Amino acid sequence: MYGIFSYGISNPRVGFKHGHYILDLEVVSLLGYFDDLKIDPAVFAQPVLNDFIALGKPVHKGIHQRLNELLENEAVVFADVHEQVFIPETRAQMHIPVRIGDYTDFYAGIHHAENVGRMFRPQADPLLPNYKHMPVAYHGRASSIVVSGTPIRRPNGQFLRAGTPVFGPSEALDFELELGLIIGKSNPLGESISIDEAEDYIFGIALFNDWSARDIQRWEYQPLGPFLGKNFASSLSAWVLPFDELEPFRVDGPIQEPVPLPYLQTSDSKHFTLDLEVWLHPADGEKICICRSNSHYLYWSFAQMIAHHTVGGCNLNIGDVLATGTISGNTPGSYGSLLELSWNGERPLHLSETTSRTFLANGDTITLKGWGFLNGARVDLGDVTGTIYS
Amino acid sequence: MYGIFSYGISNPRVGFKHGHYILDLEVVSLLGYFDDLKIDPAVFAQPVLNDFIALGKPVHKGIHQRLNELLENEAVVFADVHEQVFIPETRAQMHIPVRIGDYTDFYAGIHHAENVGRMFRPQADPLLPNYKHMPVAYHGRASSIVVSGTPIRRPNGQFLRAGTPVFGPSEALDFELELGLIIGKSNPLGESISIDEAEDYIFGIALFNDWSARDIQRWEYQPLGPFLGKNFASSLSAWVLPFDELEPFRVDGPIQEPVPLPYLQTSDSKHFTLDLEVWLHPADGEKICICRSNSHYLYWSFAQMIAHHTVGGCNLNIGDVLATGTISGNTPGSYGSLLELSWNGERPLHLSETTSRTFLANGDTITLKGWGFLNGARVDLGDVTGTIYS
Repeated sequence: MYGIFSYGISNPRVGFKHGHYILDLEVVSLLGYFDDLKIDPAVFAQPVLNDFIALGKPVHKGIHQRLNELLENEAVVFADVHEQVFIPETRAQMHIPVRIGDYTDFYAGIHHAENVGRMFRPQADPLLPNYKHMPVAYHGRASSIVVSGTPIRRPNGQFLRAGTPVFGPSEALDFELELGLIIGKSNPLGESISIDEAEDYIFGIALFNDWSARDIQRWEYQPLGPFLGKNFASSLSAWVLPFDELEPFRVDGPIQEPVPLPYLQTSDSKHFTLDLEVWLHPADGEKICICRSNSHYLYWSFAQMIAHHTVGGCNLNIGDVLATGTISGNTPGSYGSLLELSWNGERPLHLSETTSRTFLANGDTITLKGWGFLNGARVDLGDVTGTIYS
Repeated sequence: MYGIFSYGISNPRVGFKHGHYILDLEVVSLLGYFDDLKIDPAVFAQPVLNDFIALGKPVHKGIHQRLNELLENEAVVFADVHEQVFIPETRAQMHIPVRIGDYTDFYAGIHHAENVGRMFRPQADPLLPNYKHMPVAYHGRASSIVVSGTPIRRPNGQFLRAGTPVFGPSEALDFELELGLIIGKSNPLGESISIDEAEDYIFGIALFNDWSARDIQRWEYQPLGPFLGKNFASSLSAWVLPFDELEPFRVDGPIQEPVPLPYLQTSDSKHFTLDLEVWLHPADGEKICICRSNSHYLYWSFAQMIAHHTVGGCNLNIGDVLATGTISGNTPGSYGSLLELSWNGERPLHLSETTSRTFLANGDTITLKGWGFLNGARVDLGDVTGTIYS
């Protein structure tokens, strides 16, 4: 996984995660190990991954292969320079990994969409008529996306109390378990990306927490969608897993019925199975796993999201983030938000004999975890964590 | 007004509009006329206004005052260098004036909101319950904002035909008459901007056309708001008018009843009267003015938009665009979109004896115009124009 880190008096730079160490790729490059790949070492001395991403997938593959070779013999290869190359994670400060031009949030977790529908439109079909025809999405706020570990301030805002708008700190602060795609290639404005080429436009994937203030969101969101209920903060993992590393975890998606329009159709498997967990750590208690889910619960694939996003000519840029929406499973223990876990506050979630939650309390820390594990292959995503304060 | 232009083999640079000429501010700076203002001339050799904006309002005032002094005696002052300083507009190519981090679109035109409500929810109150309690808004797509003059490709997308989703070029392509605020100062994430200081965060104002595909929008927008119906393109004027120049056009806004929450309350006049027009020029016909409106029809002021946007801690950055939403007046000739002018296609708009429109045809050019004119004071906004192609 790649990320941006700094330590001591160093400037932020590109790192490669290796266990509890971070390889300083500028140092590796200056030592000459990438010389035959013809990469400007300055690419590794940037405060964001965007220039590194722009090198393109063939170069990324070359770098990854070289790193694997070097790490097989790290004790020998780096004998004299081990301390310059390997920085202990505990000494590093992590930074937001990409400069995000635009951020889009999808709604591709069908069990989440159904749960929300059941809660808020109990008399109607839980899914709106468009849901199975297109990956529904909205544009989110890029400026307030922060790196994992950044404390999250409880937002003030307007919400209804006994039918009257009041102003104050949100009383229904929530997390959302999501995956974020980091876009790796740009398309020109006015040109679409076909579903078959869509995965070429993904640099990598990272865990993403779309913090949500449900009371603010509920009062504001008609008719134009979420605004202040979401834009106070979202948290992105510090570590981005290159998309190619998901290959061993490719699985068939759900049968899509009705069959979507041709621009969303594909014959091969474009879904992935990644285990996902949410941990809640109250300030005065033990941490507890409150959700176990999996990325295969997504109704729409990453490729379908990209094909849909660009079908009208919208241009994606390197570093853009496309998040999946909340990935809930089909059982209560797999719901990816407190809104669902506490069923809109009606069924408090018990963390211990004395502690329960409907929504987040100040001091609560939420950590999202994820990994792939299939047929002997294993890969880890970087955690994303955040603690609520007021 | 300030903008970014290039000509001949020059790089894009900062220009000041003076009649049909553009002052090359890098040249003016290198000639020494800004020396006492201690401005690095490199600020004027940038491809976007962001660094110029970051100089701050006191410096902008100093520059503006100096330019006024110089232009009073331009024939004498610039006698030997007139051709280097004054570039004819006809020789210049204009560029997008700012690097836009995030773009937000409000819904502050109350007559537009009422018209949309009457069309789509005829049995109900035209305004949703939240409308008069907060400036409703959504996040839009920054990457597809283009400078005035850029041709606009008719988007493909999904929409309903006889109740069935079909794919094809939008059959209900529309414009929206809006103003765009260009943010001039950043606030830290987690900190709000009070309504009394909100105007200090506005660098300037420009006409904005939020092109909309109504058929795509209608099918996709529940429950998360507009997405592909809007993100194929928006057009921003090449010229940004500094906010201070709106001072002579300050007027009282509408009486806001119910009285909004304290964070949206202000005692002084924070609305402005700017005349606005929309011209439609068919490929094979005469151009015709199809809408005359005014910015005083906005229900929510610019200051209220900023106070609301940041009240939960969302951070604004220099160069962000906050658009007002469609500014319709209260009579049919003042409606700021074809959706309203043709009443959702029911009443075609007659452009000539033989030509009418419900929505835009290929080859149509839409031009938005705006100016302030009050008590002898006069100021012009830069046009924003775009031609539809397929």
